[in-house]
Amino acid sequence: MAVSFTLEQLVLHVGAASAEGVRAGPVTGVASLSEAGPDDLSFLGNPRYAAEVAGSRAGVILVPKGFEGRPSGGQVFLRVENPSYALALLCSVIESSLWPRPASGVHPTAVVSPAASVSPGAHVGPLCVIEAGARIAADVVLEASVHVGRDASVGAGSWLRPRVIVGDYCVIGARCRLQPGVVVGSEGFGYEVIGDEVRRLPQVGIVVLEDDVEVGANSTLDRARFSRTVVGRGTKIDNLVQVAHNVRIGAQCMIAAQVGIAGSSVIGDRCVFGGQSGVGGHLNVGDRVRVGAQSAVLSDVPSDEFVNGTPAQPLGLERRLVVLSRRLPDLFKKVDSLAAALDSLAKDAR
Amino acid sequence: MAVSFTLEQLVLHVGAASAEGVRAGPVTGVASLSEAGPDDLSFLGNPRYAAEVAGSRAGVILVPKGFEGRPSGGQVFLRVENPSYALALLCSVIESSLWPRPASGVHPTAVVSPAASVSPGAHVGPLCVIEAGARIAADVVLEASVHVGRDASVGAGSWLRPRVIVGDYCVIGARCRLQPGVVVGSEGFGYEVIGDEVRRLPQVGIVVLEDDVEVGANSTLDRARFSRTVVGRGTKIDNLVQVAHNVRIGAQCMIAAQVGIAGSSVIGDRCVFGGQSGVGGHLNVGDRVRVGAQSAVLSDVPSDEFVNGTPAQPLGLERRLVVLSRRLPDLFKKVDSLAAALDSLAKDAR
Amino acid sequence: MAVSFTLEQLVLHVGAASAEGVRAGPVTGVASLSEAGPDDLSFLGNPRYAAEVAGSRAGVILVPKGFEGRPSGGQVFLRVENPSYALALLCSVIESSLWPRPASGVHPTAVVSPAASVSPGAHVGPLCVIEAGARIAADVVLEASVHVGRDASVGAGSWLRPRVIVGDYCVIGARCRLQPGVVVGSEGFGYEVIGDEVRRLPQVGIVVLEDDVEVGANSTLDRARFSRTVVGRGTKIDNLVQVAHNVRIGAQCMIAAQVGIAGSSVIGDRCVFGGQSGVGGHLNVGDRVRVGAQSAVLSDVPSDEFVNGTPAQPLGLERRLVVLSRRLPDLFKKVDSLAAALDSLAKDAR
Repeated sequence: MAVSFTLEQLVLHVGAASAEGVRAGPVTGVASLSEAGPDDLSFLGNPRYAAEVAGSRAGVILVPKGFEGRPSGGQVFLRVENPSYALALLCSVIESSLWPRPASGVHPTAVVSPAASVSPGAHVGPLCVIEAGARIAADVVLEASVHVGRDASVGAGSWLRPRVIVGDYCVIGARCRLQPGVVVGSEGFGYEVIGDEVRRLPQVGIVVLEDDVEVGANSTLDRARFSRTVVGRGTKIDNLVQVAHNVRIGAQCMIAAQVGIAGSSVIGDRCVFGGQSGVGGHLNVGDRVRVGAQSAVLSDVPSDEFVNGTPAQPLGLERRLVVLSRRLPDLFKKVDSLAAALDSLAKDAR
Repeated sequence: MAVSFTLEQLVLHVGAASAEGVRAGPVTGVASLSEAGPDDLSFLGNPRYAAEVAGSRAGVILVPKGFEGRPSGGQVFLRVENPSYALALLCSVIESSLWPRPASGVHPTAVVSPAASVSPGAHVGPLCVIEAGARIAADVVLEASVHVGRDASVGAGSWLRPRVIVGDYCVIGARCRLQPGVVVGSEGFGYEVIGDEVRRLPQVGIVVLEDDVEVGANSTLDRARFSRTVVGRGTKIDNLVQVAHNVRIGAQCMIAAQVGIAGSSVIGDRCVFGGQSGVGGHLNVGDRVRVGAQSAVLSDVPSDEFVNGTPAQPLGLERRLVVLSRRLPDLFKKVDSLAAALDSLAKDAR
Repeated sequence: MAVSFTLEQLVLHVGAASAEGVRAGPVTGVASLSEAGPDDLSFLGNPRYAAEVAGSRAGVILVPKGFEGRPSGGQVFLRVENPSYALALLCSVIESSLWPRPASGVHPTAVVSPAASVSPGAHVGPLCVIEAGARIAADVVLEASVHVGRDASVGAGSWLRPRVIVGDYCVIGARCRLQPGVVVGSEGFGYEVIGDEVRRLPQVGIVVLEDDVEVGANSTLDRARFSRTVVGRGTKIDNLVQVAHNVRIGAQCMIAAQVGIAGSSVIGDRCVFGGQSGVGGHLNVGDRVRVGAQSAVLSDVPSDEFVNGTPAQPLGLERRLVVLSRRLPDLFKKVDSLAAALDSLAKDAR
């Protein structure tokens, strides 16, 4: 990565009033306080790292306005309201330079059906496949080897990384962001055991990602048995997540890596799922529910609950049980000594 | 999806004797009772939803023959033996219209080795890669960007979705169905620690999928260290499942999403694995074993057992332990009060 | 697989002094003792299978030098110091014949930017995409459909299986081995909730795989928010593993399938992770730590610890709790009978 900022540019990008301290030469990287060198910018995003500022070799440090320290020689402090936010502003600038929106047009090696509709404002990278009836809106970026199936559509401003698959008939909203290897619209896992035969149930529904949905690398979202699997507006899904057929996920949820949501379950808005957690099939999970990492939701969860464990229970109860279970050795001993005491008391009483 | 059925067509496809009620215009979708609109067909597949029929806005509803209700105005009931099965019949018709078998032939952008053998009755989509010695049987469908490696084979009637990889030398049986992103034949995770070095063990075996096997999106099946990793006839595997080297899975198993089966384990016939469950290495799991979601099988399991938990135990025992563990707070209290009572009794006795 | 060895070749490859017994015709496969047929080679790698040697139909068996048995008619024993190691030697020979290093050069269907640098000693397979600024070193093998992004680099001698993605700016060391579908450099899952909005944090760092790293099929490694996500020298990662942004993994670790490591956690050298285990975010795990299958590390772990369970605890403690929890039914009964005994004692005392 070739990143390079003068001090003046940094002051501008992060919205600092002025620079405190003096340095020469550009800043060429961003790193944590402990890892930064003289050409790096760093930041104090969390007060508990405040002690690390003094020892940091960073050339430039974003610090909160009221921070008490002073820059060391050759070091510069930029005082801002919220260093974490200021860093995000700077990283947005870096991102635009590392990933400028590619030019509109279709790469000559892309295989685009004449019966597909591709906006002249879209970018279609090398070796993409776009099938008949597909619709690619304006300002869409399809990086290399993206597949958009028959009659599928990708909404304005969405950005699909290499090798994303949008299955036949599926719908991607506006401004969605799909990481490499995402599969939207695989067939749901639906079978019926009839006598000795396992018979496949046709899966003729679709997947709909509403606007501003983001999906992580190699995650899989199954099409509905009929009607639609839905991911609500603004929901963010991490890598290697499984969303089964007919699942409905609400708006603005955060779903960490390797989570699995089984068929037909309905998740409300603003829920947060920890990594490797799971939800059983045909369940209802309310709004603003939090699910701990590696937990298994096996029954309905009302809104605003924080559940944890396998099977998942309200956090307070679950934590209490974990604490008590760690005291089991003592309990066993205590019961044994009670038994002995009772025994001897009984003997005495005889 | 452009689905459209007249009432006469529906009666025919679902095998109803006649239509009860009157409606005009075609049916253009399938939806659940609560979500269906006037142009949708719905169905009463499970008696516990019977109360929803009366309020449903569905234009046509599949109901069991003996169902007591009557269609509302403009609504039609189709009475059938098994509404769920009748719906599957209809969905098969829809499926054939949404995914007609593509024409035979090789897309001009496919890269097919002259030393490969492709049946004239097979379909090879755009940007497929078929290497030397590979054999593609009749009636096979390879959608876009499927990779079939050296000397690998795909049996008659199999359908591989976009971007499936069949590794070198691997064997896919007849009528298999592989979802996007499946990897068959990655190298097994085999290493030996020799002194300070971690040394890779060559993985020179293959993977064999017997007939009628189905594998979900982005699942991975490793080739054997030597000989073969096998998935038995009719077994169905969901998304993001890991099958390690030298695993042998029997026939007609159902393996839910995100399950992992470690190296060299042998699974019998007709087993059912819940989502996110796992099996340790070098274990034997009998026939018709059921494994609960998120459970970890860490020892052999005899046939017909239902196991649950981490480590997995027979379900009855495991459920009992979960119930008892929830009563731990009471137990701790009870022991404390016993101790106090004993104490006071002992004091009295003195 | 067309494998064929004469007895003389086998003796040579496994380093046996001589053959014991007589057979005609070549050996054409490798199989376990119980599965091998007359044309297969098998081996006694583990003394507990010694009883299987007598009944094995294998044509040739690798046995330890001191093994007491004798070959049956038409069967040959090859006596070696370490049969497992001898087999690995033979499998290396088989591997070289099944996967000879492909010829140098770029396949005509590959899409290589004129601004990329590809060593003349590298192999670039069909339908690869290599973007501007990418550097492919000597002796690299990129099988079909590999994607190497902008300014990314692949070190000498690395072998990337079909459909691997190396994201923009990422760095793959020397002699790395990446299985099909691996994604290196997806964007980290970084969001900030500002009021009612979930805002994406730009992810402008990279991923660095040091030398001799191996990664399993469909695993995902996220680029850092800034600076780098690192996998240390010689570390081996299995299939479907998630490595989040800014994670640092040390050298020579072994990470089994479906493990997830959350953002910014730091793992030491020579750690071993069991399948489906996880590590929470911002944690420190020391050197030579072992984590049991399906465990969840939710707090720092010192070096040389073996932890297990969810949340993970030192193995001894965790095992003891599991054992005690299985004795809970007895404990409940015992407490009940203590209560009854105490009660009757108290009654007597009155």
